[in-house]
Amino acid sequence: MIFLRQTAYRSIIVGVSYTHRTIREAIFVKRVYNFSAGPGVISEEVLLSAQKDLLCYGNSGMSVMEMSHRSSDYTPIIERAEALLREILGLSDSYKVLFLQGGASLQFAQVPMNLLTGSGSADYIDSGIFAKKALDEVRKYGKINVVASSAAENYTRIPDWNEKDFDPHADYFHITTNNTIYGTRFSTLPEVGNVPLVADMSSNILAEEYDFSKFGLVYAGAQKNLGPSGVTVVIIREDLLGKAMDITPSVLNYTTMVKEGSMYNTPTTFGIYIAMLTFEWVLKQGGLSAMSQLAKKRAQILYDAIDASTVFKGVARKEDRSFMNVTFLSSNEEIDNRFVSKAKKEGIVNIKGHRSVGGIRASIYNAMPVEGVLALADLIKRFEKNV
Amino acid sequence: MIFLRQTAYRSIIVGVSYTHRTIREAIFVKRVYNFSAGPGVISEEVLLSAQKDLLCYGNSGMSVMEMSHRSSDYTPIIERAEALLREILGLSDSYKVLFLQGGASLQFAQVPMNLLTGSGSADYIDSGIFAKKALDEVRKYGKINVVASSAAENYTRIPDWNEKDFDPHADYFHITTNNTIYGTRFSTLPEVGNVPLVADMSSNILAEEYDFSKFGLVYAGAQKNLGPSGVTVVIIREDLLGKAMDITPSVLNYTTMVKEGSMYNTPTTFGIYIAMLTFEWVLKQGGLSAMSQLAKKRAQILYDAIDASTVFKGVARKEDRSFMNVTFLSSNEEIDNRFVSKAKKEGIVNIKGHRSVGGIRASIYNAMPVEGVLALADLIKRFEKNV
Repeated sequence: MIFLRQTAYRSIIVGVSYTHRTIREAIFVKRVYNFSAGPGVISEEVLLSAQKDLLCYGNSGMSVMEMSHRSSDYTPIIERAEALLREILGLSDSYKVLFLQGGASLQFAQVPMNLLTGSGSADYIDSGIFAKKALDEVRKYGKINVVASSAAENYTRIPDWNEKDFDPHADYFHITTNNTIYGTRFSTLPEVGNVPLVADMSSNILAEEYDFSKFGLVYAGAQKNLGPSGVTVVIIREDLLGKAMDITPSVLNYTTMVKEGSMYNTPTTFGIYIAMLTFEWVLKQGGLSAMSQLAKKRAQILYDAIDASTVFKGVARKEDRSFMNVTFLSSNEEIDNRFVSKAKKEGIVNIKGHRSVGGIRASIYNAMPVEGVLALADLIKRFEKNV
Repeated sequence: MIFLRQTAYRSIIVGVSYTHRTIREAIFVKRVYNFSAGPGVISEEVLLSAQKDLLCYGNSGMSVMEMSHRSSDYTPIIERAEALLREILGLSDSYKVLFLQGGASLQFAQVPMNLLTGSGSADYIDSGIFAKKALDEVRKYGKINVVASSAAENYTRIPDWNEKDFDPHADYFHITTNNTIYGTRFSTLPEVGNVPLVADMSSNILAEEYDFSKFGLVYAGAQKNLGPSGVTVVIIREDLLGKAMDITPSVLNYTTMVKEGSMYNTPTTFGIYIAMLTFEWVLKQGGLSAMSQLAKKRAQILYDAIDASTVFKGVARKEDRSFMNVTFLSSNEEIDNRFVSKAKKEGIVNIKGHRSVGGIRASIYNAMPVEGVLALADLIKRFEKNV
């Protein structure tokens, strides 16, 4: 089998494999530019490495998928994944790193189960459907104080907040740093004083630089910038451990998981391995600062094309525009759909906007090559002539 | 790269791959016989198929790992996984199939959260450490009635039970069909009348034939017979839906997950794909009846070798011996360790017993070739001469 990238813009062979002694097939396969909001594009370098070792990793004689999570074959993988992530993010020793399951959606409940045991109330900023899902989940476990919301503007901006509305006794303060559906991001973090800042960073972790010492807890589903779905990264400051409610399932208790090194139960071993390869790749590209520069560059190319277009306009307020999810639409749905179809023919796929916003959404995570973004920007320009 | 199976018993090339136009390396790689208790061995056919398609699945232009879970590329994969599993197990329409996350350990809490809302009490048989973990978790959500326990015999047998001890008003009755650590299995199911029978089938699903209409709910972590870790299969009879406690996280509510087709949140997409390939492979081998015959054959080869040995004796009571996990030990630890080391040199790995039992444990899941079992049985015979 011959893997071939063959879009409108380039065609390179990315891999050839023969099976069972004989050459069984030689098929040219198109690799597309995948703008999916998640699960999304993964670096080809990561995929090639995983492919090469899929039947035998190192000298183990087995696939990573077949390894006991407690074996001497697997331990170095999860340890290396943690060490690399710490290096990329510059985490201090007072932070613990966990590789869990269940995605951000499970964290929506796991966070209050573990933290909402002081005053029993938490502050949330309502900046999108996922932020809303997170805060609705809290009502099962305690009180919720919505300090700001942009729901009335269909979440097309980050809401303004007034520090007077913050509860100084809140058990924590929750934000969603990047809102995947609308394409907005927090350009400044709220000043929360001594209240622990908790962030759902699912869609921009490893793509934006943050001072992590500002956070008490950060969580992220892997399927955008970290690896495949099924892995959830949780970074927790150690003073927040030991506070879980009695009803917390053992496997959802952060303290238990810290004690057991993410292995109270069997973790998603293969997903963590792909995350490890992704972290290696991120460091090879120059780490977080390089990733963040590249993210801004990719986003700028698209926003420039949208702002120059007479057909499309951006969805999000300019000051709040995301570097990860670029949302835009024309004056009517039929034109949007035509654009999506035309793009697909050119190997530019998964750009249909979320149903609650409509239009187009191009998710440009770390593994999206600049060439892919240039191809889409070029299409925006060319499309104008045909409307 | 040349993948070579090279154990004491055979050496076959299982795959060759070239990268980037040129042959970069030609390395002979040993594939071992992996007796890990889980995550465990996966069919080489499944791994080769996943390897071939790792950069591009079908005409999608992307890896399965990169697919949006709601895309037209991915939907056929999860639908096919469900259809094949239904076919293998012979499930009627009154059962719903879910692909979830968190493993059996999360089910230990999720089951009571969803079902313990009638009388508020459940019956459990305590047949091993995992059964014990399951029943300890229930105490957070209601009452527990331990109807039988073999804890006093270090779980080396399935405990006897007396139907008089069953609570006819229990919300459900829980068993662990196969106990991985001790190598025991339920050879008959308790007669529970109208009380829903709930089974943790993690370590023998797809390897033993059951009349599934006897169960109200079955759950299984994937990492033994279904695929890689990170996927949990739940099979639930529809009359058990709609009973969840208010404190149940949305993502842990079976009813929500049934409504959303396992996609209230992003499932472990790649793991479900490997499960689909595994189900295809199981059907190609002849389905559940063939798998079950093969399981008995593999187990018999090892139990015969153990029973003929003057060095080793079986751990589990004969009537309760597992077809999946074969546990045995010698008169002292030093001999056991010597056996484990000798086996490793012959490419027979991960046979050290669980710390709570000691000795040897050979886990012989569906993907373990009979040749591997013959190699281990032969070693048991040869070893005797050297003790």
